[in-house]
Amino acid sequence: MVTLSDVAKEANVSKMTVSRVINHPEQVTEELRGLVQQAMETLDYHPNSVAQALVNNRSNVVKFITLEDIDTTEPYYMNLLFGFAQGLTKKQYALQLVTDPKQIGQGRADGYLITGARNEDYEWFDKLKKPFVLFGENHRGYDFVDTDNQSGERIATEYALSRLYKRIIFVGIDVKEPFEYSREAGYINTLQKHQMIPQIYRVGNHSHEAQKLIKDNFKELKKDTCFICASDRIAVGVIRQLQKEGARIPDDFGVIGFDGVFLDQVSNPKLTTVKQSIFKMGDLLANMLLQKIAQSGSPQGEIMIEPTLVRRETTR
Amino acid sequence: MVTLSDVAKEANVSKMTVSRVINHPEQVTEELRGLVQQAMETLDYHPNSVAQALVNNRSNVVKFITLEDIDTTEPYYMNLLFGFAQGLTKKQYALQLVTDPKQIGQGRADGYLITGARNEDYEWFDKLKKPFVLFGENHRGYDFVDTDNQSGERIATEYALSRLYKRIIFVGIDVKEPFEYSREAGYINTLQKHQMIPQIYRVGNHSHEAQKLIKDNFKELKKDTCFICASDRIAVGVIRQLQKEGARIPDDFGVIGFDGVFLDQVSNPKLTTVKQSIFKMGDLLANMLLQKIAQSGSPQGEIMIEPTLVRRETTR
Repeated sequence: MVTLSDVAKEANVSKMTVSRVINHPEQVTEELRGLVQQAMETLDYHPNSVAQALVNNRSNVVKFITLEDIDTTEPYYMNLLFGFAQGLTKKQYALQLVTDPKQIGQGRADGYLITGARNEDYEWFDKLKKPFVLFGENHRGYDFVDTDNQSGERIATEYALSRLYKRIIFVGIDVKEPFEYSREAGYINTLQKHQMIPQIYRVGNHSHEAQKLIKDNFKELKKDTCFICASDRIAVGVIRQLQKEGARIPDDFGVIGFDGVFLDQVSNPKLTTVKQSIFKMGDLLANMLLQKIAQSGSPQGEIMIEPTLVRRETTR
Repeated sequence: MVTLSDVAKEANVSKMTVSRVINHPEQVTEELRGLVQQAMETLDYHPNSVAQALVNNRSNVVKFITLEDIDTTEPYYMNLLFGFAQGLTKKQYALQLVTDPKQIGQGRADGYLITGARNEDYEWFDKLKKPFVLFGENHRGYDFVDTDNQSGERIATEYALSRLYKRIIFVGIDVKEPFEYSREAGYINTLQKHQMIPQIYRVGNHSHEAQKLIKDNFKELKKDTCFICASDRIAVGVIRQLQKEGARIPDDFGVIGFDGVFLDQVSNPKLTTVKQSIFKMGDLLANMLLQKIAQSGSPQGEIMIEPTLVRRETTR
């Protein structure tokens, strides 16, 4: 490994001079600067980002904190992470992944991206000493990027109606979180506009819970119904039980999911779904966080990304 | 942001002294050291990892390089990444994700983890200036961590035989890579031991290609056959077409996958599979890479992790 001492030797100057060229180039003559920079090039010594980080008391590292259990997370975190990492790499930032909130304060980082936050987490957010941004909408004034959840379910519900399904049932996720309220609002408002009565079920975000819901209620279901599901996991469970009951998809029953990452493509039949632009959101979150760090923590506001409906085989 | 100057002011010493306490504590009196350290604590200034990195010409950053297209990667990369990140965090290392090989040399990093390498990639590996380790077996002497692929398919084949399937067909991935040869060898050697004749098909690693294979060959298939598949993606395609043909799983046909991350759980029926310990391998790769960096690039050898058979609904 090339060290600062090697550079000093190569340039035939003191270590102090090398250090000054790196940290306070304005205090050094042009001649000395040239000598040292040439030595650094010769030896392939690249101290800039690290040295600058030291001068600014920056680590050039941010933490990606996920508060959901990894085993239960959707594969879409992979996309979010790649988008986020791409945004960071452009600015020569690196990331640490944190799954245990206790690790947040350990070591060094200039800021945090927090994902999977639930109501009970907000209490300790205000104690964080570094700038942070959230992936996921909230109404407490924290900066965030999210899909426009309400718009997504409005598009899904309008599409189901345009395919002439007579009944539209919403199967939501059983959590009291803003993203869920927004998805339900998108559905409710659209039905209201068409003077139809909403019918909402809520289950845990697992395919087997959705499957059980359909099993328990199948006898009361009528043909010409479309299910608007708050996640692809739920949609997969609905499809599975409809198939077990011998129901015809999409002729008698339509199913529309939400997320559009991986699961929708491996489902059989392939799932019509509201696709989130996860990679893009990751990139935007990196930009937002780095800007917030550069601006000493000043508010960045909220960004809502429009999702797109992907039409496949579970709607007619 | 707290800077080195703030610490100097707080401790009432020169910036040089603060710098010396950080970089060469052995050159400073105990009294001065105490003063500066107290000032750093008061101001919540944590320069250690960054300062040490500067002194050692280290960035405390490594790159996670994936050479496969992200859209086509299995969700298991998420697990690998989390395991790798956990291993790094223990040593206060951060990571940058790289998906474009051209970005490898950009910016700073002390070493690389390379995943998804194919034969054509090895040419440029030797030009890399930093230590690196591979995720995925190779026979060219590069350090790696991988699943014991041969052992995995031996376990799968032995299990299929123990469930009294009379014919065992291997559906492999159509690539000329060591991991695939090892999986095939595990199958072939086991059949040979039982004096049975191997029957191998190879398709691209997509469920629809496996589905087409079964469709094209279904008439020649006999009951009491078990398919040993080189991935869960392939297994899912085999299952799908067997179901379309009205074949009974697991009574007439058994299916065993490989990977055991996510896809096996959402398949219907749930998939019997050879499960890789991906998270653990990520952690081991971090340890291997950081040790290699600490030892100035000396060889670390190879680690093969034994996979486990998970018995579910696609075998009788």
